[in-house]
Amino acid sequence: MPKILIRPGFILSGGDNWDLSSDSEILIEDGIIAYLGHCRGYVVGEIDRIIEGNSKLVMPGLVNTHTHAAMVLFRSFADDMPLMEWLEKKIWPAEARLNNEDIYWGTMLAISEMIRGGTTCFADMYFHMDDVARACLESGIRASLAQGLIGIDPEKGTAGLKQSKSLISSWHGAGEGRITMMLGPHAPYTCPPRYLQDVMSIADILKVPLHIHLAETRDEVRECLDKWGKRPVELMDSIGLFAQRVLAAHCVHLNDGEIKILAEKQVSVAHNPGSNLKLGSGIAPLKDLLTAGAHVSLGTDGAASNNNLDMLEELRLAALLAKGFHEDPTAIPARQALKLATVNGAQALFLEEGLGMLKEGAPADLIMLDLQKPHFNPHHDLCAHLVYAAAAADVELVMVKGKLLMEKRELLTIDEERVLYEANRRAERLTR
Amino acid sequence: MPKILIRPGFILSGGDNWDLSSDSEILIEDGIIAYLGHCRGYVVGEIDRIIEGNSKLVMPGLVNTHTHAAMVLFRSFADDMPLMEWLEKKIWPAEARLNNEDIYWGTMLAISEMIRGGTTCFADMYFHMDDVARACLESGIRASLAQGLIGIDPEKGTAGLKQSKSLISSWHGAGEGRITMMLGPHAPYTCPPRYLQDVMSIADILKVPLHIHLAETRDEVRECLDKWGKRPVELMDSIGLFAQRVLAAHCVHLNDGEIKILAEKQVSVAHNPGSNLKLGSGIAPLKDLLTAGAHVSLGTDGAASNNNLDMLEELRLAALLAKGFHEDPTAIPARQALKLATVNGAQALFLEEGLGMLKEGAPADLIMLDLQKPHFNPHHDLCAHLVYAAAAADVELVMVKGKLLMEKRELLTIDEERVLYEANRRAERLTR
Repeated sequence: MPKILIRPGFILSGGDNWDLSSDSEILIEDGIIAYLGHCRGYVVGEIDRIIEGNSKLVMPGLVNTHTHAAMVLFRSFADDMPLMEWLEKKIWPAEARLNNEDIYWGTMLAISEMIRGGTTCFADMYFHMDDVARACLESGIRASLAQGLIGIDPEKGTAGLKQSKSLISSWHGAGEGRITMMLGPHAPYTCPPRYLQDVMSIADILKVPLHIHLAETRDEVRECLDKWGKRPVELMDSIGLFAQRVLAAHCVHLNDGEIKILAEKQVSVAHNPGSNLKLGSGIAPLKDLLTAGAHVSLGTDGAASNNNLDMLEELRLAALLAKGFHEDPTAIPARQALKLATVNGAQALFLEEGLGMLKEGAPADLIMLDLQKPHFNPHHDLCAHLVYAAAAADVELVMVKGKLLMEKRELLTIDEERVLYEANRRAERLTR
Repeated sequence: MPKILIRPGFILSGGDNWDLSSDSEILIEDGIIAYLGHCRGYVVGEIDRIIEGNSKLVMPGLVNTHTHAAMVLFRSFADDMPLMEWLEKKIWPAEARLNNEDIYWGTMLAISEMIRGGTTCFADMYFHMDDVARACLESGIRASLAQGLIGIDPEKGTAGLKQSKSLISSWHGAGEGRITMMLGPHAPYTCPPRYLQDVMSIADILKVPLHIHLAETRDEVRECLDKWGKRPVELMDSIGLFAQRVLAAHCVHLNDGEIKILAEKQVSVAHNPGSNLKLGSGIAPLKDLLTAGAHVSLGTDGAASNNNLDMLEELRLAALLAKGFHEDPTAIPARQALKLATVNGAQALFLEEGLGMLKEGAPADLIMLDLQKPHFNPHHDLCAHLVYAAAAADVELVMVKGKLLMEKRELLTIDEERVLYEANRRAERLTR
């Protein structure tokens, strides 16, 4: 791999420390940040490639901890509808027609959009995951993948688990560690406790985490109480799910006891404010979760319920919504919002230490943004700009594990024209 | 003025009808839409300039009905703070240092950002309005301007009114009607009823509408009740303010009676969801206002409390927030959100009929967006894409009154480099 030196105007290394440094540079060798600090005066010869970025800002790549990537094929196919009508009349019939090539091209479209918005890593739960993994491998993005498991029908449930085992043995650690796998029990209402016990046994054996939807809607809570006499988070706790490493998406409808459980058991909560608003699910108590010490990261959910995969938009929404909902302008300050979308995301996916921030020895997953735009000026506080003013199109360069995936807004690993063509062609067939 | 023909892939004419037409074209002559319909096969010669836009979409320009443009100079200067501390320790001291040249360059920065995001018209309330008007005149944008009036100190209140009269006589109708003026009594808590009576008398004489902040925070309501025994909207109604043409910004804290008053008196409500969330003011009852028949449009507020002037973001936020807040995914469907940001905006500013939509005889205020981007594909529903997926950077071309202000994302009437330089230089002095 080429030795690359980036000399940007500004660096935000992230982690707990979002202080701005200027006059610094980042040396990337073998996919790793080999040096980060004041300029040493390297010259071409010692270095294969020098990237100058005078009026530009480098920061850690964004981590999207909950999506269903190929659902971009259903972007704006059906909106502004009641949830069950939307699912039963529109989404499920269209999904039933998806073949593995649709999933591949849909995932490629999603990855194109994610790279363009500065996302370097995402967690996906869907199906035909061999084809999702193939798209990740080819495009160079980092991903944590889980096949969605439905356990209501025992036969299908068992088949899904078998398939998941095979997926994990094929793909866990592929792309020199870029691709990791999880088990994906869909939700408490589609996976009864007995089935979840089976999932947990396999997670123990294969040493992989779980990715589940949890407490997304008021109806889910009501049904769970009716059926099991417990609320969703309580039910999951009672069957020992949280002894596993769990990524729980949504967590909108929680009582104080459930917030405490999520915090104490260090469940990774994927907060999806855009999707929760759009589907009318409600507003998750982000401030209360963080105050209780819960581990929260951010997801876009699928593009059928968002309708984009824009993590800068999602982190802004998370910060704004918490302030407005609690009528507290000090809730989720800018640096905390940035943490949710970077290092918290990497930790939520149980990835190697160092991911989600920029430091020596960490994988070089980073993005560079162009600040020479009206909405990024004047330069009072670049962290606040990133949260409250930035846009996906400000991202100019994306690097994952030392490899450039986008430069000057040109995708380098994806034939974007073909992806748009295939996605439109397939979407038309799927929704006809 | 040159005769321009635009041949885009798609046209959304807006108004009440957001149906998509393809194979259509728009002819612009003397600042007016002279023809809109199926292609007639014009050729260069008959037409001075033909703009082809195969994979592009033309729609009405966006109207931002509440901002303080030059406050971009304080973008991200102070965030995540309690409201009064933010105002007293940060914003007011910095504002006290603003001179007229700062306002000119700040407004130019704001206009640059607004044009880049597809805004063709905005309503401003600030001071040094001669310089704001100058920036609007030079840049080619459409604007409705009001000098902010504070009536607590009678002497200053009277001086402000005198100045407003002179501004109105200088600028109302300038730029061949592009610039219109309003009177800008700041808010009920800074303009006591007696002063508002004076403002109303002058509005009657000069035949201009009023632009006021109303019911923005819980504290405002409490203070108004303490002082006048009425809530802000009730108080304004009781003194006859709503017999005037009134643009009321915010309207967050309303009871049912006040919603009814705003609807019955056809007050123009400027909904500012981003600012209301960010300052922790709360969530305005948008769905209830619309259900009651109130006239609602959208504003970004100033960039010190947003922190951008992105109307596509604001209309998305309005739609999402209403759905989530009411737990109703059918609230504010896509086409209604688009109406809020276009024709409702033009009507809110009491501008000529036809503005805010595309039709023959209407002023040619329009924008063209590029759809060849992952987040705009597949093409199931372009209206939904505009609301739920689009971004400011998708806007490629902006025209106001038949004049091109941006083409291929290049600003044509503004020296952007100089604007960024001046804005940064001045912001540094102001906040030192």
